[in-house]
Amino acid sequence: MVEHGGRVLAAARKYGHAPERWLDLSTGISPFGWPVGEIPPEAWQRLPEQDDGLLEVAREYYGTLHLAAAAGSQAVIGVLPELRPRGSIAVVVPTYAEHAPAWARAGHSVVETLAGDVPALLDRIDALVVCNPGNPTGDRLPRETLLAWNARLAARDRWFVVDEAFADADPSQSLAGGCGRTGLVVLRSPGKFFGLAGMRLGFALGWPELIGALAERLGPWPVSGPARWIGRGALADRVWQATARERLVKASARLVALLGAHGLAAVGGTALFVWVPTARAAALQAFLAERAILVRAFARPAGVRFGLPGAPADWERLDGALAAWRKTDA
Amino acid sequence: MVEHGGRVLAAARKYGHAPERWLDLSTGISPFGWPVGEIPPEAWQRLPEQDDGLLEVAREYYGTLHLAAAAGSQAVIGVLPELRPRGSIAVVVPTYAEHAPAWARAGHSVVETLAGDVPALLDRIDALVVCNPGNPTGDRLPRETLLAWNARLAARDRWFVVDEAFADADPSQSLAGGCGRTGLVVLRSPGKFFGLAGMRLGFALGWPELIGALAERLGPWPVSGPARWIGRGALADRVWQATARERLVKASARLVALLGAHGLAAVGGTALFVWVPTARAAALQAFLAERAILVRAFARPAGVRFGLPGAPADWERLDGALAAWRKTDA
Repeated sequence: MVEHGGRVLAAARKYGHAPERWLDLSTGISPFGWPVGEIPPEAWQRLPEQDDGLLEVAREYYGTLHLAAAAGSQAVIGVLPELRPRGSIAVVVPTYAEHAPAWARAGHSVVETLAGDVPALLDRIDALVVCNPGNPTGDRLPRETLLAWNARLAARDRWFVVDEAFADADPSQSLAGGCGRTGLVVLRSPGKFFGLAGMRLGFALGWPELIGALAERLGPWPVSGPARWIGRGALADRVWQATARERLVKASARLVALLGAHGLAAVGGTALFVWVPTARAAALQAFLAERAILVRAFARPAGVRFGLPGAPADWERLDGALAAWRKTDA
Repeated sequence: MVEHGGRVLAAARKYGHAPERWLDLSTGISPFGWPVGEIPPEAWQRLPEQDDGLLEVAREYYGTLHLAAAAGSQAVIGVLPELRPRGSIAVVVPTYAEHAPAWARAGHSVVETLAGDVPALLDRIDALVVCNPGNPTGDRLPRETLLAWNARLAARDRWFVVDEAFADADPSQSLAGGCGRTGLVVLRSPGKFFGLAGMRLGFALGWPELIGALAERLGPWPVSGPARWIGRGALADRVWQATARERLVKASARLVALLGAHGLAAVGGTALFVWVPTARAAALQAFLAERAILVRAFARPAGVRFGLPGAPADWERLDGALAAWRKTDA
């Protein structure tokens, strides 16, 4: 199994602090969750209905017609590789760790590549997978570059898969609105921006034939009734979305400033997380974990990804821990 | 797409009654749902954690060690066929309509067979799929028969898949406790007995190697945080379970009596639904739908499956509609 963030229970066992004491900054999930309110009992009791209006709301939100809902974009990542004949797949790294294994498991041959090397590969591969913004670095590839890659791939009937898990806070570079044409698949993951990763809701945006095959493959009722109910409310809540974008932009700027004040230079990141390249990533992660603060350290590229603190007390704890780290580092 | 019960919105469009007016008896979901109460906000906000205790509670409930959780047993049905080399699969019919297509989609050759013809096939097939109790008839195959089939298949390293979606109300014939040995897979679907089909929670019970491969295939976070939280509570709530079993047995007996009083002889069924074989299945279904009561008509075998009404007013409505049907039938 690939390791991921958010594993507070495992950290609690390893470092000996009670689970409720942990400040979890190990994911890119917004601390400002959409207010769920009271779920109607029928959403729990009845089988979810495909024609409940969720897809219409999602079409408005993403600005495209053909999409399928799944229990998180992870569920789409797992089945997408089965929907195309075996071939050569390039995955731009660094990226979310589940893409390459999913294609390999379905029998494709997978190469990992840096974004700069993509043009040389474009005419030889059967599908290209890119995370934009990148994870964990937050690197953004310009829309024009992505559209040019898409065009070259589509000319040979090849696929371009863009994982936009972290695009909601700044959708300006999103390719969502360009979906519908054969060959372009965009994955979206509303749980991060809406602060509701536990609900398990994701979308694949694409062209009619692919979306039909994907929905068939995902089977009936892939998404829970409550997640569909929340999705209908949250994706339609434009006022909340605008406010959340502002709060996230402010909070991520504040986090960059806090890290900088303690000698940790943030490079890149998104409104949902901050990326700090450092050769001492593992040591910093362990130091913070001793203080019941969970962040994610990466080895290639070497660095630490910080999610956003929410409550004032969380900011203070992080501030204190980083001040202590700086002393050891000096 | 295969058609299923529970599609009130489609029925509302077709027959012209508002969705909220419908009495939905088209599924085998208990009308006596486990009381969900207030979901902790973290269950929505955070990524679900695999080591949150759900699997321990499920091990106790099912009486077996090796199991994987999924977003409904449907999700397991979709991926199980990919975990064995292509071969000859027999599916005992009538059964839940998703089994055969899932095996066929994964490249297996599938034959549908009646239970009586299974012994003649056992030495020639690579996997056997049985729903027990059966759906929609509620037919029960004796535990000894199933264990004998399992033994003959396992001797050749072949699989026996038992879908026990409707077993919770009477687990006496369940093979769950016998899982752990190579070759026996049992699928369980708590949403039906616990009256929470919308939460999307299911389990596969099997042997360590299969369960490991299945969990890998399902990927991280296949089940929502709230469904895991509910599962931990509901599967451990033995007092509620005992009460629910009694209520379901009484309600299904009452439904059999009501149908009988209107000339509809129930044959088989389970505590969660009643099966009425009748050549006029489609006409009866349409007649009830005109009255905003949704049941499921089947063509092979010909009959109607009735789920349980819950509230007193629901019983009265069904009583009245069946009395009217009897007059047209006379």
